[in-house]
Formats: sequence, C-alpha cells, structure tokens
Amino acid sequence: MFQTFDDTADPTLGIERTRRLREELKRRDLDGFLIPRADEHQGEYVPPHAERLRWLTGFSGSAGMAIVLLDKAAIFVDGRYTLQVRAQVDVATFAPHHLVEEPPARWIEQNLAKGARLAYDPWLHTVDAVTRYKAAAEKAGATLVAVDGNPLDAVWIDQPEPPAAPVTPHPIEFAGKPAAEKIGRLTGALMSDDVDAAILTMPDSIAWAFNIRGADVPHTPLPLSFAILHEDGAADLFIDERKIGPDARAHLSPVARLHPREALGHALNELGAKKATVLIDPATCPGWIHDRLKAAGAEVKRGSDPCELPKACKNEAEIKGTRAAHLRDGRALTKFLAWLGREAPRGGVDEIAAAKALEAFRAETNELRDLSFDTISGAGANGAIVHYRVTTATNRPLERGELFLVDSGAQYLDGTTDVTRTVAIGEASPEQRDRFTRVLKGHIAIATARFPEGTSGAQLDAFARMALWKAGLDYDHGTGHGVGSYLSVHEGPQRISKLGTVPLRPGMIISNEPGYYKTGAYGIRIENLLVVTPASMIDGGERPMLGFETLTLAPIDLHCVERALLTGEEADWLNAYHARVREALAPGLDAATAAWLEEATRAI
Amino acid sequence: MFQTFDDTADPTLGIERTRRLREELKRRDLDGFLIPRADEHQGEYVPPHAERLRWLTGFSGSAGMAIVLLDKAAIFVDGRYTLQVRAQVDVATFAPHHLVEEPPARWIEQNLAKGARLAYDPWLHTVDAVTRYKAAAEKAGATLVAVDGNPLDAVWIDQPEPPAAPVTPHPIEFAGKPAAEKIGRLTGALMSDDVDAAILTMPDSIAWAFNIRGADVPHTPLPLSFAILHEDGAADLFIDERKIGPDARAHLSPVARLHPREALGHALNELGAKKATVLIDPATCPGWIHDRLKAAGAEVKRGSDPCELPKACKNEAEIKGTRAAHLRDGRALTKFLAWLGREAPRGGVDEIAAAKALEAFRAETNELRDLSFDTISGAGANGAIVHYRVTTATNRPLERGELFLVDSGAQYLDGTTDVTRTVAIGEASPEQRDRFTRVLKGHIAIATARFPEGTSGAQLDAFARMALWKAGLDYDHGTGHGVGSYLSVHEGPQRISKLGTVPLRPGMIISNEPGYYKTGAYGIRIENLLVVTPASMIDGGERPMLGFETLTLAPIDLHCVERALLTGEEADWLNAYHARVREALAPGLDAATAAWLEEATRAI
Repeated sequence: MFQTFDDTADPTLGIERTRRLREELKRRDLDGFLIPRADEHQGEYVPPHAERLRWLTGFSGSAGMAIVLLDKAAIFVDGRYTLQVRAQVDVATFAPHHLVEEPPARWIEQNLAKGARLAYDPWLHTVDAVTRYKAAAEKAGATLVAVDGNPLDAVWIDQPEPPAAPVTPHPIEFAGKPAAEKIGRLTGALMSDDVDAAILTMPDSIAWAFNIRGADVPHTPLPLSFAILHEDGAADLFIDERKIGPDARAHLSPVARLHPREALGHALNELGAKKATVLIDPATCPGWIHDRLKAAGAEVKRGSDPCELPKACKNEAEIKGTRAAHLRDGRALTKFLAWLGREAPRGGVDEIAAAKALEAFRAETNELRDLSFDTISGAGANGAIVHYRVTTATNRPLERGELFLVDSGAQYLDGTTDVTRTVAIGEASPEQRDRFTRVLKGHIAIATARFPEGTSGAQLDAFARMALWKAGLDYDHGTGHGVGSYLSVHEGPQRISKLGTVPLRPGMIISNEPGYYKTGAYGIRIENLLVVTPASMIDGGERPMLGFETLTLAPIDLHCVERALLTGEEADWLNAYHARVREALAPGLDAATAAWLEEATRAI
Repeated sequence: MFQTFDDTADPTLGIERTRRLREELKRRDLDGFLIPRADEHQGEYVPPHAERLRWLTGFSGSAGMAIVLLDKAAIFVDGRYTLQVRAQVDVATFAPHHLVEEPPARWIEQNLAKGARLAYDPWLHTVDAVTRYKAAAEKAGATLVAVDGNPLDAVWIDQPEPPAAPVTPHPIEFAGKPAAEKIGRLTGALMSDDVDAAILTMPDSIAWAFNIRGADVPHTPLPLSFAILHEDGAADLFIDERKIGPDARAHLSPVARLHPREALGHALNELGAKKATVLIDPATCPGWIHDRLKAAGAEVKRGSDPCELPKACKNEAEIKGTRAAHLRDGRALTKFLAWLGREAPRGGVDEIAAAKALEAFRAETNELRDLSFDTISGAGANGAIVHYRVTTATNRPLERGELFLVDSGAQYLDGTTDVTRTVAIGEASPEQRDRFTRVLKGHIAIATARFPEGTSGAQLDAFARMALWKAGLDYDHGTGHGVGSYLSVHEGPQRISKLGTVPLRPGMIISNEPGYYKTGAYGIRIENLLVVTPASMIDGGERPMLGFETLTLAPIDLHCVERALLTGEEADWLNAYHARVREALAPGLDAATAAWLEEATRAI
C-alpha cells in the first residue's frame, strides 16, 4: 500500500524536543529559530529527514511553520489545520496561530526582543520569505541570522538519512522531447534574454528538463537535486551520486555535467567570479543560493523558473500518455465505484476500507507507480472537510442516506491523474441533489467554456460558481490547479481561481473541481482533469478560440442529479460525457462492471 | 443644443502653429515640448483654453499626446483614433503613432538627442507620467525639463480664457449627506492613517466632497479647482473667486477656507515647512504639486484619491435621485424610440437627425442640464465604430435592413444616465438576430448575477462574453464602467472588465454594456445602468450575496431577439424587465407612445 492510515501524533514529545533545541540555541548564542515545513526544494512533499516541523511539534500537516524563542514558541498553520494542530501539538509549548491572518512576520515583529538574534536555516526559506522575516526582525530591533548547520538537526538524534533513491531516465515515448532539445531551448532563451545562467531548484523543473524521474519523496516521482543552465548551452546537475546508476549516467552524460550536491556552492562562486547575470526565482529559490551569488559578485536577476511554462504546456506524446493513463485509471475507478455501489449500501464499508479498495483496483492495472496523493475518503460530515485525510482515529462507516466523497489520483509512467467523485450511499436527499446539481452545472460551465487566447483562469473561475451563487452558496477553494505529466499533481503556473492571472495555453492540464461543503453534514466535489485544446475557429465564428477537452473518464452519480435544474445543453453534455465514458471504458471491463456502467451512464 | 456636429478639422493650420511653437522653444533654449490632451485635472473633458493638442495639431479626439522636437514631431493616439488622426492632422508634420503599442516614452528614448532638453508643463502631466518620461529622457542621455509658463500658450494668440462658470451648491436632497459630514469622515480617516493632509486635484472628487457643481467643462457639471483636506478637520478650496457667488459662498464658508487658485503653491509651502506627511494620488496629481511639496520639505505619501471609493458608493438619496432620473430619461428615450419606429422605416432620418430628436425629447423634460456625453448615433457600418461621433462629414441615413446603434445619456440634477439601444430599421437578418441575442444573453447574465462580498468586476466580466465566446465572437472593450451622481459618466474605481480588480460594493452604479461589432456592417450594444444591491440572504442560502438592480428603463428591440437562443430563465428576465419598463413609464406617456410601448414590451 502507498497510503497509511496511522494517527501518529504524540503531542508530549514536543516538550522535551523543544527543550533540547533551546539548549542548542543558547550554546550557539541564538535567541530563536524558525522551523518551516519545507526542504531545500519547497515541494509539496518532503523526505523524512526534512520533516523537522513534524518531529519537533507533532504537527503532520503539509504546510506550516514554528518559531521557537528561548521563552516562548508558536506554530502557524492555515485554515485547513486549525483543528488538527490542537490535536497533534502541545499547545502549552506551541501557541497556535493562523498562518495567513496572524502571519509569522507579524509575530516576529511583536514578540522579538530588541537586540535578539533570530536564526534561520537559509536552505529552507525562499528569497521572498527571508526578505519578509528580515524586515519583521528589523522592525523589532532584532536581527535575522542565517545559520551554518541546522541547530534542530544537531539535537535530532535519530534523524533519517537524506533519501538516495535511484534516478531513472524518463522514456522519450512519454517525455515526447529529448532532454537535449529542452535544454537547447531553455539555454537559447537565456542567451536572448541576456542572462548568463539560471539556477533550477524545483525538482519537478529539473525532472522535466532532463527527462529523469526518481523516488526521493512520497507521491511524486522526483529526484531531489539542483541544476544550473548556462547561456552557452551547458548544464550542470548537482545530485547525490549514489542516485546515479549506469542507465541514468548514460542518459544524463550527453546533456549535463554531473557534480556532487556539495559542489553547488563552488559553482555559484565561479558565476560570481565571472560577474555573471544569474536568474533565480525568488518565490522558490533558497536564500542560501541568493546570498552566495551576491557574495561571490554575481548579478542576481529575479524571474520565474524558466521551466515552469514549457513544462505546463504538454506536448503530443505527453497528451497521448495522459489519455492512456486516464483510460486505465477510469477503469480502475469504475470498478471501485461498481464495487462501492454493491457493497456500501449493505454496510460494512468504511473510509479506510474504501481507500484501500480503490488503491487495490489501481494496483491491479500493474502500472501503478504511486498514488499521486493520499486519497481523501470522506463519508458524511468528513466529506465536508476539504483536505480530509482519514486515519484510524477519524475513520467513519459509509452509511445509507449519506454522501461519500472520494478524491484520489495515481502516478503512472504515462501520466498523473486526479479525480473526485461524490456518490450517494442509498438515496440522496432533495437538498443534496440540489447542491450536487449546482456543483455539476459549474463543472459543465468550465468543461464547455470557449475563450479567446490570452484568457486566464481568473476570468473563468466564476463560471464554476454562478449556479451556487444564485442560491446563496459558494466554496472556499479554487476551481482548478495545474497537473504534471508523471510529475507533481499540483503544478503552476496555470490555475482556475481568482489568483490565476496567467493566460491558459494549449496543452496545459488543469483540474475542474467545483464543490459544496455543508459543515457537519456532507461534502460534494466533482473533479475531472482537462487539457486546454489548441485555438480553432468555430463554425461561423470570427476569432480562434481555446477550449477544454475532458481527460477523466468515470461516471458521475446520477442518483445525485436533479434533472429539472439542468438546461437542455447541460443535460446534453452530461449524456454525451457518459456515452463517451461508457464507450471508452467498457471494452476493458468484466461483464458485471460493464453492466453496472451501462446503467450508471444511461442518458437522462 | 448641447451637441454639435461640425467637422472642424483643418490639418494645414498645424504647420504654421508648429513653426511658431518651435521658435518659442528655441528662444527658451529648449529642444522639444510635450503637448498632452489634458488640463491640470486630468478629466475626460477639458475647457477650451486647455485644448492645446487640438489647437496645435487639429486632432479632436479625447485622448492623445504630441511631441514637438525642433526637427520632427509625432502624435500618439489610441486604437479608436487611428483613422481620425490621419483625417485631422498634417501627418507630414506630426507622424502618427499608436499610444499603447508605440508609447511616447519609447519614442522619447529613441528620438531624443544626447544632451537635449525636452520640456513639459508640470501642471499637465501626472506624477506617474512624469516619472515615465523622465526615465525615457535619461535613457536617451537627455533631460526632461519642467517649464514655468507653457510655451504653446505664448504663441496661441487667441487662446480662450480659462472658464469661470458659477459654482452652485448641490442640494442636500440629491447629495444625501452634508459636505460637513463628508469632510469630517475624510479628514478623520487621514488622522487615523497618520497623514497630515491630502491634496485633491480631481474636480469630481471636490464637487462630491463639498456638494458643489459647476459648468467649466462640457457634459460634466464640474467646477475646476484644487483642495487640501487636513487631519484636524479643516479644508482649503483653491478656486477662481469669480466662480463664487453669494449662494456658493454661504454654502462653502462653513466647511472650507476659500483661496484664489494662485494661493495653492503657498499652501503647499506651508505643509512643507511643517514637515507634513501629504497624500497625493500619483495617477492623477500634477507633477507640479508633487515637486513643490518635495521642494518645500513635505513627506509625500502615494495613495488613491480618498474621495474615490466613498463617492462611488451612492447613499440612499443619490439612489433615489438616480431612480427618478432614469424614469424621466426612460420616458424621453421611449418617445424617441417610438418616433424612430414610426419615422425611420419611411426614410428621411439620418444619424444627426436622430441625435437631435433624442436631445429634443430629453430637453422636453425641462430637467435636462446637459448630455452626459456626445450621443453616439451610428447607422449600419458606423455602428461598428465603438467610439463613433457623427459629424456632417460622416452622417449616414438610417436605411431599411440596417441596425442603428444609439448610445446616449443625460445630466439631470438628480442623476446621470447612460444607455445604449440597438434597433432594427425594418427587419433584422438572422445573423443580426443571432448576434443581438448573444449580446443580450451576456447582458442578462450580468444583470442577474449574484455574488459574494469581495467579488470584483474582473470576476464577472466573462459572464457577459460566454455566449459570444461559444460562437467564436467577442468584443474589444470592457463590460462596464462606474457612473457618478450628477457627475462624471465615467468614474472609478468600479468596473466590469478584466482590469476591474476592486471589489464591488453596495451603492456603486455601473454600466452593463456587452456588444458585438462587425466592421463595415453593423454594431450591437445593449447598455443599462445597474446599482449594486446590499448583501442579503437568498432563501435557503448560507452566505449573504450582493447583486444588481437595473436602473435603466427602456425597451430592448424584440425584432432583434431570437427567442430560441434564450433559456427559459433568460426569457423570463426579459419579459419581467419589459413588464417593469411598461408599468413604470406608461403613466407619463402620451397615448400613441404608450400604445407603441405596449407592443414593444410584449411578453415573448
């Protein structure tokens, strides 16, 4: 199993660990220390040795930060984790705060003593974050101090080793373009922008550019490393050499000079000595790299990671791969939904059993490399918790008359999936059907949108909300995020949300996932992945328009649909989508599942 | 008549005038001069003496700039005026450029000689613009020089005098809140923001804050003046004293200290001497004020004009006033539409005759103070020109089988209107009906939108385009602009456009005007004004929602509506709107017009 359901929190451990950290700080003449939930690469998943926040405080969420001063400490988490932090953390030691409404910078400003030295590990904070904390410390009359060697690591006796999972070349069949071509284009662009070099610190950028994959973190097939691209076409890869077997070396040697990770500092010094102009992305680049470049004499240019946009626009091979992955994944999900339809109303299925069954159906494809994230398996009231993760402590049975929300995804060599279905166990109430159908109307409005080039996700987001808004309802998350190609299940720059101001471009894969959540009662979300289709002329139209093709293939629960709320065009879309699902999936299904699918995708 | 239809351009005059301006520049040892289409207040309309760009070049558009160097000159206009500029200006003297795509700053950078002295009148350029031109001049190795005394004025022999129209107090019945209360709130906010004073340079802000109106520019009832608000509650008004009669003095004395306009510089010096922190809006404040404040020792704080947001959120009296204005204006427009329906198909009506008739129907109300802008009266292909202004040279007859677009508005003491109707002369073609109905669908999507607090016009804009986008069509302007209360017909900060990121708030008046334009053939626009309604709970809803109430009352031409393209809900909206129009307007109409309206507003 790729997913575990343990409830590991032991709040009391944090008390002793914090005491030991404070001793280490005093020994180093420091008055405080920042502990982010981050490694050097700012990814969504971090390897075990970088779970410092979790080790220190017990908090296992995917975002947050602690600040330990000698006499007090605080932990900052966002709205998803306000309940969880109190269950997992000793709040007498760590006062909980809201990461957005009471941000760490303000706490620093208000709690640091004049003349205090607040330490941070410059590998674990971005350039932008360091700027923010530095300003806050200065306002308090204190100093933000970069430390050499993480003080927490010094007291974490049984800290795991950094991961060294083998790097595998990503086959050209799935990558579509050779690494040499990608690097040629990236470095050519540097030349035309008068930039001498770009530092890559995001592992998915590096994996994409060099056509490599790895297994250093859960759920995302990434090797952790750094890279430098040079305007003359050369590329340096800084990576633990234990990860590089003969195949990887043969694949990488023609496109990159391989160096141990420790050689990065030296390479930055060399850029500085040449007075090079060096591009970094301040939103993701560790402060350490920025400081080293400046100290060495380089001119730092701030800009977006140059891989971000080309990585987001999938090529034909990647789109072909994702279609195959969605066909496979759709069959596994359909088998699961058929099983659920049979078993759940009889009783005896709970959230963990459902998640395990779904993983098993995916594993049966023999192509499953990982889940793309821990399955959100939420029955009844748990479905209303947007980022719910089921544990043995929270596990609920799927009861008749309740909705069950399952948000899951898989990593296959040919593509990454992410899909949410909400199903009625037994019968749905009129209110549930009304809400479900409004969410579906929003989903269809996005799926069928046509829009001119230059249109951003911010312009489309409200399409998904219009039917809910008309009923005085809404949901508190974005409508869509980018998805990688056997890479991160959350990637930028594309998004459908009021913050998504980057224009959508052909080939971008993006989720379409409006929802509705009734706290304490039920949650509804309908999520398909889409790919932005190339600009084309509509018959009788004047301007080339972009649009979406839905990639995800799985039935949407008709028990939850209130036909009278749909327009004719919306019902047409649903029937056409279901016909396509049926025709695509049926050939690979057993007779019983095929029969169930026939019924589940009937025209309404 | 408030509107004239002359075609005044005489391109040749510019040759001699430019020669004289160059002599004046040489006399002052200057190498060039910037001539913007702007006065000191950056308004949409400027008084005759400030029409310097028009006098020099012949160009009569509402935005643009010329740059005259000793050996060459250029004129910059936006996409609306690319044809017009070539008709009105001697292009051998002034090379035409696109204001946005080839902006003046780039031209300065590329055309100024090293060491050159490029002059500008610091009263006529905003702080932001000066920053831009200064940087451009520096890149060319030249200098941007503020001149004391406009060199163009020195050679404009018969330059009109600045206007001195009397200031009238705006009755509390229409203003809703006393000036003392508004100034109290504004100055109280300064105190709590630690700002010592704010400079007001926008005449509509000053008119709103002090409850005064005037007649210094066409189409907007504004007195031109400057003001300073102080955190202690005091206010200074700098205004030509000839404008202040006994009534105005009695109204203003309790709330403002009156000074001649020339005293502004001295007042800025005093702020500087006190080392005051002074708020200016760099997007509208003349560079002169900024430079004087800095030179005098003040600390300049940049921010939005503090009147902008409270002015935009209309109070109950203003909303009551606008409702009355729209009722009156709707009757006048309906009489016009009935007349047009009778006369136009017979032939003999042209664009000018139509505009004159519409003004006459408005004048018959005996409440008309001005048009709120020159009526856009566009038949056939002229309707496709978004900012068309009919002149004797362009005047077209309204022909059977063509569409006629009329965008007009009025200034009444109780409110400002702005409305567009598109009507078929005779019968509309199937294509015209299809396009009209898609525009109408967009109009209805905005009119019926509900949305949570914090939602901006940028989030709603695509609602108006969805039906057009689905057919491969679009329009190249925003969907809505703010409208003042017997003030500017274009005001901020609210707008419905992808640039409108300010949240919509209750009481804001905003236009809803999607369109479609087929170059060389016809134009369609359907425009009503809306007011943002207070947050309220929808039955069965969970969150308070804002929405819109349509203010404009006039029939939408049913000859152009393709019923089959409307959903049931859309047809319901149209029928309910028409019923409301009929019931509201009929009591004040003659029998013939009432009968016409009955038919024009029949349910479909």
